[in-house]
Amino acid sequence: MSFERANIHAMDGYLPGEQPNQPDVIKLNTNENPYPAPAAVAAALAAIRVEDLRRYPPPTATAFRQTAAQLHGVAPECILPTNGGDELLRLAVTTFCGTGDTLGIAMPSYSLYPVLANIQGCRVAAIPMTDDWRLRDDFPDRLNAAGARLAMVVNPHAPSGKLTSAVTLKSMARRFRGVLLVDEAYVDFVDPELRYDLVATLRSCPNLLILRTLSKGYSLAGLRFGYGIGNPDLIEPMISKTRDSYNTDYISQQLATAALKAAKDASKTWEQVRTERARLSAALQTLGLSCLPSQANFVLAQVPAQASAEALYQSLKADGILIRYFDQDRLRDKLRITVGTPSQNDRLLDRLQAHLGA
Amino acid sequence: MSFERANIHAMDGYLPGEQPNQPDVIKLNTNENPYPAPAAVAAALAAIRVEDLRRYPPPTATAFRQTAAQLHGVAPECILPTNGGDELLRLAVTTFCGTGDTLGIAMPSYSLYPVLANIQGCRVAAIPMTDDWRLRDDFPDRLNAAGARLAMVVNPHAPSGKLTSAVTLKSMARRFRGVLLVDEAYVDFVDPELRYDLVATLRSCPNLLILRTLSKGYSLAGLRFGYGIGNPDLIEPMISKTRDSYNTDYISQQLATAALKAAKDASKTWEQVRTERARLSAALQTLGLSCLPSQANFVLAQVPAQASAEALYQSLKADGILIRYFDQDRLRDKLRITVGTPSQNDRLLDRLQAHLGA
Repeated sequence: MSFERANIHAMDGYLPGEQPNQPDVIKLNTNENPYPAPAAVAAALAAIRVEDLRRYPPPTATAFRQTAAQLHGVAPECILPTNGGDELLRLAVTTFCGTGDTLGIAMPSYSLYPVLANIQGCRVAAIPMTDDWRLRDDFPDRLNAAGARLAMVVNPHAPSGKLTSAVTLKSMARRFRGVLLVDEAYVDFVDPELRYDLVATLRSCPNLLILRTLSKGYSLAGLRFGYGIGNPDLIEPMISKTRDSYNTDYISQQLATAALKAAKDASKTWEQVRTERARLSAALQTLGLSCLPSQANFVLAQVPAQASAEALYQSLKADGILIRYFDQDRLRDKLRITVGTPSQNDRLLDRLQAHLGA
Repeated sequence: MSFERANIHAMDGYLPGEQPNQPDVIKLNTNENPYPAPAAVAAALAAIRVEDLRRYPPPTATAFRQTAAQLHGVAPECILPTNGGDELLRLAVTTFCGTGDTLGIAMPSYSLYPVLANIQGCRVAAIPMTDDWRLRDDFPDRLNAAGARLAMVVNPHAPSGKLTSAVTLKSMARRFRGVLLVDEAYVDFVDPELRYDLVATLRSCPNLLILRTLSKGYSLAGLRFGYGIGNPDLIEPMISKTRDSYNTDYISQQLATAALKAAKDASKTWEQVRTERARLSAALQTLGLSCLPSQANFVLAQVPAQASAEALYQSLKADGILIRYFDQDRLRDKLRITVGTPSQNDRLLDRLQAHLGA
């Protein structure tokens, strides 16, 4: 006997990357930052007393909203703290896209997006990316033609690492009639010299909602803290109606606030990742695995024609090195590899070379 | 210009009790435990290192599931860890009650239940409680007649504190054709001599879902940790499909596991609350405020005919004492008062006496 709704019964759940318990596994499969969080976060953690947990936390994480607002040069009313970035994605569906409505996405992309649509009973308009991993120029027109009320785009793109410019996204937001959610989970790893800044376009885009997370850039995936940045008209219904009343806990509020205040410290790890990203890409190329230029903390590597991406993934797993293989169109000949520390990357390259007989 | 769905636009959000920042306020308004969490929780907190937060947490909180399963004598597959009990309520709606379906509740009750129905676009069948604050004998028949797919009942009841027996709930679950969620947020404060044990009836009730939280009994409202107990057929779609992929964070998993392992320590605070509950109820009675016999960590006190509950609430607030007043049918002549420490309760009684001129 089954009690769940028919659409829940019929759908498949999201399958997260493996999270092994063994600490000695080299984990390059879920895009964690290989370097620790800023020291200020450790200090904030040390200052927590269990007595602080006896009462309910500040319901809207006021201190965090103020800190994030200051960092981004917006009003606190433009910030929505969430239990990981995933919660913001869910809240956007809950708030803007009802049962039978259409969610627009680019394909391929983060596989959670269509899962969230299925939970809500939404249709999905999956619009293929171009052969060179760009959003199609007519992306907003296709969204409008499909009647999409909400669209989700990850930028830098996953799993390719490709960055779409803020100018392009602004133009697309202005042409799209629904809410455009830009998932900037990996934005901290973008080269600063590109001067990518989508937050600056919020004023002229009332339908733009930006997702940020502390999971990658701030080395706090285990904390579950993300936030949305958008105009108050978009943020208000999620703050006051659709989120759970106390969606973020006291400890995560304290640590996330400390982390954002220490953004400069965190940015040193971003620079390290960028340096290593360049080295890893070049070394993979030498082994015959061509990488798209990535602005994220991972690279998408195409395996040589005579090799099997899935077999390489399995061989590396047997070596104690986890990377990501996607059994999906356009991705079956590729591997997504998180940029690790120099020694982790060396070990990966060494084992890859052995398996390729290169 | 408004982008949110019509039902979200039209609805009112849930209004949580005030959470003031001032530490000197006597806070008897949101049913927090006045005593600290077990010492083992402090030890678990001290053992967390920021480096532990770099990686994603165990997605399904495996260690917590095992600990909770052992405590309740069920299989780990019967346990669903959640980001506060509120998340379980939301997940139950998401999973079992679609847009246009009916959620059944008893009235009055926890005001979040109809809010969750409104978010999902569900109908609400609100079935009045009897004059003596019992569920009506025909509660399940009325639920069935309304076509309810899910019903939510809080036991001990809020805001009355009245306990419905497990035998009665079992019988109602067996007669109801949908999922019966029994919200046991306050169950830790039930007199042990009543031998109330609804978990024991799970085997014979495939449609029964029990909510527990660490917010009250374990003095961890700031941590946001709750869990569901139910048969695997009910738990599975929520674990593998409808919850956010990493819904509980690493720190809360560690602390919640430590807390349940120290249930015996926590139970000493439950005993203290029960003792104080009896003293507070008797003293309120002496002042002319009659209380229903409560099995929770609060009492519902009826103010004397010549007094105004709302005015008393306001006067106490001006004194720095927060209690809860509900502007709702059957509750406008009553005050819900959390059982505090003896000195907090003395202060409350003293100020009440002054305001009543008793």
